[in-house]
Amino acid sequence: MSLQTFLSNHYKKPIVLVQGLGFVGAVMSLVVANAKNADYAVIGIDQDTEAGRKTVDSLNNGIFPIVADDPKIAEFFESACKKGNLFATVDPAAYSMADVIIVDINLDVQKTSNNKYELNNYSVNLEPFTKAMKTIGAHCKPDVLVLVETTVPPGTCRNIVAPTIKTELEKRGLPVDKIKIGHSYERVMPGPNYIDSIQNFYRVYSGIDEQSANAAEKFLKTIISTEKYPLTRLGNTNATEMAKVLENSYRAMNIAFAVEWSRMAEEAGTDLYEIVNAIRLRPTHSNLMFPGIGVGGYCLTKDPLLASWSRTNLIGGKEKLTQSETAVSINDQMPRYAFEFLERRYSKSLVGVKVLLLGVSYRGDVGDTRFSPVECFCRCLINAGVAVSAHDPYVPQWSELDIKPSQVLQKSLQDQPDIVVISAGHRIYQKEETIQALLECNPMWVYDTIGLLSKKQITKLQQKHKVIVLGRGDL
Amino acid sequence: MSLQTFLSNHYKKPIVLVQGLGFVGAVMSLVVANAKNADYAVIGIDQDTEAGRKTVDSLNNGIFPIVADDPKIAEFFESACKKGNLFATVDPAAYSMADVIIVDINLDVQKTSNNKYELNNYSVNLEPFTKAMKTIGAHCKPDVLVLVETTVPPGTCRNIVAPTIKTELEKRGLPVDKIKIGHSYERVMPGPNYIDSIQNFYRVYSGIDEQSANAAEKFLKTIISTEKYPLTRLGNTNATEMAKVLENSYRAMNIAFAVEWSRMAEEAGTDLYEIVNAIRLRPTHSNLMFPGIGVGGYCLTKDPLLASWSRTNLIGGKEKLTQSETAVSINDQMPRYAFEFLERRYSKSLVGVKVLLLGVSYRGDVGDTRFSPVECFCRCLINAGVAVSAHDPYVPQWSELDIKPSQVLQKSLQDQPDIVVISAGHRIYQKEETIQALLECNPMWVYDTIGLLSKKQITKLQQKHKVIVLGRGDL
Repeated sequence: MSLQTFLSNHYKKPIVLVQGLGFVGAVMSLVVANAKNADYAVIGIDQDTEAGRKTVDSLNNGIFPIVADDPKIAEFFESACKKGNLFATVDPAAYSMADVIIVDINLDVQKTSNNKYELNNYSVNLEPFTKAMKTIGAHCKPDVLVLVETTVPPGTCRNIVAPTIKTELEKRGLPVDKIKIGHSYERVMPGPNYIDSIQNFYRVYSGIDEQSANAAEKFLKTIISTEKYPLTRLGNTNATEMAKVLENSYRAMNIAFAVEWSRMAEEAGTDLYEIVNAIRLRPTHSNLMFPGIGVGGYCLTKDPLLASWSRTNLIGGKEKLTQSETAVSINDQMPRYAFEFLERRYSKSLVGVKVLLLGVSYRGDVGDTRFSPVECFCRCLINAGVAVSAHDPYVPQWSELDIKPSQVLQKSLQDQPDIVVISAGHRIYQKEETIQALLECNPMWVYDTIGLLSKKQITKLQQKHKVIVLGRGDL
Repeated sequence: MSLQTFLSNHYKKPIVLVQGLGFVGAVMSLVVANAKNADYAVIGIDQDTEAGRKTVDSLNNGIFPIVADDPKIAEFFESACKKGNLFATVDPAAYSMADVIIVDINLDVQKTSNNKYELNNYSVNLEPFTKAMKTIGAHCKPDVLVLVETTVPPGTCRNIVAPTIKTELEKRGLPVDKIKIGHSYERVMPGPNYIDSIQNFYRVYSGIDEQSANAAEKFLKTIISTEKYPLTRLGNTNATEMAKVLENSYRAMNIAFAVEWSRMAEEAGTDLYEIVNAIRLRPTHSNLMFPGIGVGGYCLTKDPLLASWSRTNLIGGKEKLTQSETAVSINDQMPRYAFEFLERRYSKSLVGVKVLLLGVSYRGDVGDTRFSPVECFCRCLINAGVAVSAHDPYVPQWSELDIKPSQVLQKSLQDQPDIVVISAGHRIYQKEETIQALLECNPMWVYDTIGLLSKKQITKLQQKHKVIVLGRGDL
């Protein structure tokens, strides 16, 4: 089907274009195609590259490009295919048809670290993002609503998006006072609640002016369950842009906080999980985090840096956000700490020792290995001369490392590892069948890096194996 | 009445002695004297100093030594007086009568700062605390339960309390295997829920051995509503000691986090209160803190340092708790930031300008000025040549500074200040009568340092006055 045929099939419907078909955009286009309070024709657009064309073809051929545990994904995709109101393309001509353009492209941070994985330096290159805004301005209707969902450095909508698009409109001899530019960040959580993390969750939004904010509000009300999760309008786009990076900085810092205490717990012979659970009973302390192998994923590893970068580069501040930067640096080192904990406890040489990693993705029950802390942990093992193998039911090919995770636990254990490391929180590792399988192995070490095992399971395993838990000095 | 008469009046009751009659011990003795599930004779003991004797006399003469907003204080004190089961003394002989000794004495941190109020150095002197433990050991029954509630550096019960008391018992030729030493930290919150913060709240406890933990549990169950707020037992005393300083470090760090963002909000022209409120809707982010004039009180200003000090001095760790120390240093500087915000906005010279402070205590609706951030803020004003006056219905005499706060707002305003600063969160400052009184003044500046004013109140005040709010760059 061509873009023209698609449009003529839906010629009376408002057209929503989603720019960028990655982990956010692809799922966003499903939510818009299944909008509760409107009937949209949705065009997903990606870059004219090999990867972009592959995604687009996949979508148009009835294969959703992202694998996830949420049954609603299949349900929403099927419904969109049936209605025929979702079409993907790499053709920029599509921009000229859109009444709403949702921006879901990446905006990356380039980080450099030293050999301890401490953050050395980082930079933000706004060029690709600015280019994408230029493309919008070069094709869009003068009264389109551009709704930016990308996590951007605060100041971007005001200083980059608005002037770039307006300049392009002027070049085309079009008025610049009708354009509506809104900002409303997503809180997408890949995993079993993927769709709900868009459709059934709180949203914050703003606009570069009142007509923009009103247009953003009107649109969001058609796709989000705002009766249950009311929208929050903030005073300007700087505010919503700050809100997104602030909330992720807060999270990153709270995780970093657990790092030092985890090591102190080891020194003091205490169980940090037990301590954190006791404190969390206080409502004022319910967000206290547990220790672990590290922070991964696309957001927490970079958003605090976007924030700090913006302060000196876009907002006009003189100082960095030191605490946010420190949090990222500490979190980047967590996998190394997790490795050092093993090294200290194992005490013998690790050269030639066989280690099996259970789980390589950055989060439980998700097949996403972007910036997974397990990668860094694994590199530490390899550098120490360890023979590493891995198991992960969600990751058939670990693209970041030359390791092919097995999908069958029994098979992974056949080789009789010396140390089994629980490195991702997949639910399967909590199941009795897993404990049983581990108990059938010869005596070995079991290292829980994320506190997944219950006390009962630890006691059971201790009958045969040596068990250690990161953040627990009392074992 | 003498100690002997008191004891003979209650000769069959278990005797609970509370060591230290300060903000915690005095109220603790009320809770024990009104225990829900036991009938205790309670002896409060304080040091044989002028202050100590004054407290003791006051208690014995029917005047509770602490002024607070909680009506339950008077109720509980009246009931104890009626029953006659609460007696205060400075006589160490009392230790020998006790079945339970609750330790509620201070353990201070000595801090030094530079002229920017950054933390320069700090030290912990365990001597006074150790001396108090020696006194216990020199007099106590060999099978007494010593329950430490003081916030101590982790490792203290194991490395200081137990060996000190046991050594004293040995000196007296008594057995050392019957002594029970427990640790259970208080979460006392001076203010309208003073009593409830002891009697109706979660408790964490532990013992140096199982008989100690059991004894602590049994006792706590008699004074705390454990059906509604179940007790949590942790593995050892290091763990409960860590829990207390960890929870306060977490709080201190979360406050420090708001500091940088508050300044960025000013630079970006955004309202940080609005942003924080929007984010707090997420259950995972509900503990995010607001910006403000600073952190005061006895706990948050020192507990993170106790924790860090303990790591290298008692626990045997090699590194400090950097994040916790940084949090204290940032929070110590908050009043200076609050002053600098005013300085930047006011732009004219502050020499000779008349500033009226509304509220000087460290917390709303409390008459407690210990380590109040308003003190430091006030010193900044004075250094800048400002003529400072103050109003505080809870503080008739501000002992830290040579300023006598007025108790009547109208009177404070008669002198027509140039700037009115809302510096403590007393509820009275939110009332319409206060806004009205401010509106009756000549045009002036109103500076809200804690986000107490509602948007509506700000708009009202703006009709006549210039209003600025810390953490809001959009006004």
